[in-house]
Amino acid sequence: MTAPITVQLIQDSSGITDCPGYKVSATACDIRENGDGRLDLALIVSDSPCSAAGVFTLNDVCAAPVHVCKSIIGQDGNQIAGCVSNSGNANACTAEQGMLDAQEMTRYTQSETGQSAAFLVCSTGRIGRHLPMPKIRSGIAAAAQQLSASSESSHAAADAILTSDTRRKVATARFKYAGQTLTVSGMAKGAGMIEPNMATMLAYLASDLQADSALLKIALKQACDKTFNRISIDGDMSTNDTVLLFANGKSGLAANASAELLDAFKQAVFLVCDALAEKIVGDGEKVTKLVELVVEGTQSVADAEKVARAVGNSLLVKTSWYGGDPNWGRLADAAGYARVGLQENCFDIHYDEVPALIGGKPQDIHSAEWKRIVSKKRFRITLNLNQGSARYRLLTSDLSQAYVDFNKSE
Amino acid sequence: MTAPITVQLIQDSSGITDCPGYKVSATACDIRENGDGRLDLALIVSDSPCSAAGVFTLNDVCAAPVHVCKSIIGQDGNQIAGCVSNSGNANACTAEQGMLDAQEMTRYTQSETGQSAAFLVCSTGRIGRHLPMPKIRSGIAAAAQQLSASSESSHAAADAILTSDTRRKVATARFKYAGQTLTVSGMAKGAGMIEPNMATMLAYLASDLQADSALLKIALKQACDKTFNRISIDGDMSTNDTVLLFANGKSGLAANASAELLDAFKQAVFLVCDALAEKIVGDGEKVTKLVELVVEGTQSVADAEKVARAVGNSLLVKTSWYGGDPNWGRLADAAGYARVGLQENCFDIHYDEVPALIGGKPQDIHSAEWKRIVSKKRFRITLNLNQGSARYRLLTSDLSQAYVDFNKSE
Repeated sequence: MTAPITVQLIQDSSGITDCPGYKVSATACDIRENGDGRLDLALIVSDSPCSAAGVFTLNDVCAAPVHVCKSIIGQDGNQIAGCVSNSGNANACTAEQGMLDAQEMTRYTQSETGQSAAFLVCSTGRIGRHLPMPKIRSGIAAAAQQLSASSESSHAAADAILTSDTRRKVATARFKYAGQTLTVSGMAKGAGMIEPNMATMLAYLASDLQADSALLKIALKQACDKTFNRISIDGDMSTNDTVLLFANGKSGLAANASAELLDAFKQAVFLVCDALAEKIVGDGEKVTKLVELVVEGTQSVADAEKVARAVGNSLLVKTSWYGGDPNWGRLADAAGYARVGLQENCFDIHYDEVPALIGGKPQDIHSAEWKRIVSKKRFRITLNLNQGSARYRLLTSDLSQAYVDFNKSE
Repeated sequence: MTAPITVQLIQDSSGITDCPGYKVSATACDIRENGDGRLDLALIVSDSPCSAAGVFTLNDVCAAPVHVCKSIIGQDGNQIAGCVSNSGNANACTAEQGMLDAQEMTRYTQSETGQSAAFLVCSTGRIGRHLPMPKIRSGIAAAAQQLSASSESSHAAADAILTSDTRRKVATARFKYAGQTLTVSGMAKGAGMIEPNMATMLAYLASDLQADSALLKIALKQACDKTFNRISIDGDMSTNDTVLLFANGKSGLAANASAELLDAFKQAVFLVCDALAEKIVGDGEKVTKLVELVVEGTQSVADAEKVARAVGNSLLVKTSWYGGDPNWGRLADAAGYARVGLQENCFDIHYDEVPALIGGKPQDIHSAEWKRIVSKKRFRITLNLNQGSARYRLLTSDLSQAYVDFNKSE
């Protein structure tokens, strides 16, 4: 048995083009139709046709580009040219015209870039409006002329997919195998409608290993279940959530050439997803605090998840975090309405390492410490039901007045 | 077949003492321990032992008084003296001491009022603190000396159970039968943690009919399922929610003496619950708008309820109502993540009578009207999935910046 390969996130990621064999570009084509000159269209193109897999929103109301991505990957997920994305308009709830527009985006990108393989397509922004297709077409045409592997282009592409985000979100993991350096790079957008099973979240990961679409799907699903699907800002699952993983084989190495290599690849995918997921929560709409919620001691992971979601999405809990109020009674209340059979007399709550409730009894002697912890920018809350050995971790946030102000109109 | 009896809400309800045979009182005993002199303890006493039934929170974390009420009604729900209630402290998450304190409240009220039958007990307020029992005992002793059937006492009792409510909540229904006037009166408190299956909600109903506890339970459950269980402010179900219905037989008539009488009694219970439920939503913490959400065309009521709760509890939906933004895309998004199999191409949305989406197609021609409707203090939204004949109505509210400010600390 060989030692596992060390996989590490790099400092100062440039995003997608940290990975060999991909070019990107971004343009401003006024999709928001307000003349603000903001970058709003991004292309990712692999130097040679690549494999791709996606994880998508589970919302019954599913945007046209999500349908189109699923269909293209379903036809041949091993012959993909890249992806075209826009922000400012979700192309959701747009009926037949929306489907035609999404299909036109992929076809037009294919012809403007001269690729033989098909493009995937993602959109994010306001729901229920038709895409301004003439603007989209000129944007695609311009972007196709500017493809580059530079870090400037890569940053511009990461900026072009943002909506209410305040910060660019990129991450890159690398590891060595057989004398070669291998890479998984990524970029994402988040901000609103963030709730497990995706969010108004788009994320793209690129790798230089070779892997078929089915293998990519397994690696991506495993990583998403532990990262993007375990974050929550406002509990609203979006119509457009999409995470895509590309593998172009530029390194000449197959991801499943050995068990160690496959493990390292999966670990790299996980690390990039994890880093991007944390950036998404940290940059949630008007978030002031990041809370790591750990529920343990349940009989099943599903029960632990129910408790974590009830607590993490409770308005009364989230507003008390915003106010720096260690109101553990609201935590207990929300844990109770998850209805997993919590027994009060064996229920423990900790703020970081400090007990608030042990066996159902308040530990008031520590109240000054609770207050200090809840005043921090990031802290952990552990709820232990002491009824089993299952566990679930949810990364969530507070709810601020500014969130309400920000979302009261669009 | 006789015509149904007309049951009507009266104008200017005094609350509980509108019903013959009940006395009430209220005192200020500083349960909040801040010396504000606020009324915080209320007694309801029937002139003779009465029957009672209750509907309680389904939260796993259940306050001590809820356990005590269930136990007393379980022993003999037909020999009840009345109820003692306090605000300012929920006596929840208070372990064994909390149970002892709740039991002491009922026993002490019994001895101070000289009643042979047992008292029920309700508490509401902050979770996780022990009751200040010396203050509670002196409050009970004082209240026992001030029992009265006056409307002033009845209003004072309705005030004493309030927490963050801004308005007193009372309602009374009356009807005539065999030459007699019969009454169901009530009072309630709401404000925060309001979500179906009860809330931080206490409600008390009194009747002068005779009915055993089992019959009362049926009438109360039917009424709650269509009223208190169909309102939502913040989606947080409380540890203390309790609705109690008393019947003292003062009129000499049995509620089940005839089918018409029983129907009229149930209708009166429903009307009082409905009026109190609407007052609770209208006085939700920092609510500025009341929204009647109707989901129809689903295959089951359970599916319609899932959609209504997803939409009615969505932060993005609630904040857009607050801002007067007719953002129907957020409604569609939330309806979709309820995951009941919504099909976009047969999905309709209306603001009042004005179409926003028909068969999945936006009706932008009406957008000025949407805006006008969402700017009103009260409006209706109808979501029709056109997949069946089931229907669910949820009364809900917007979410304001003031809500966040109000709840950020306690």
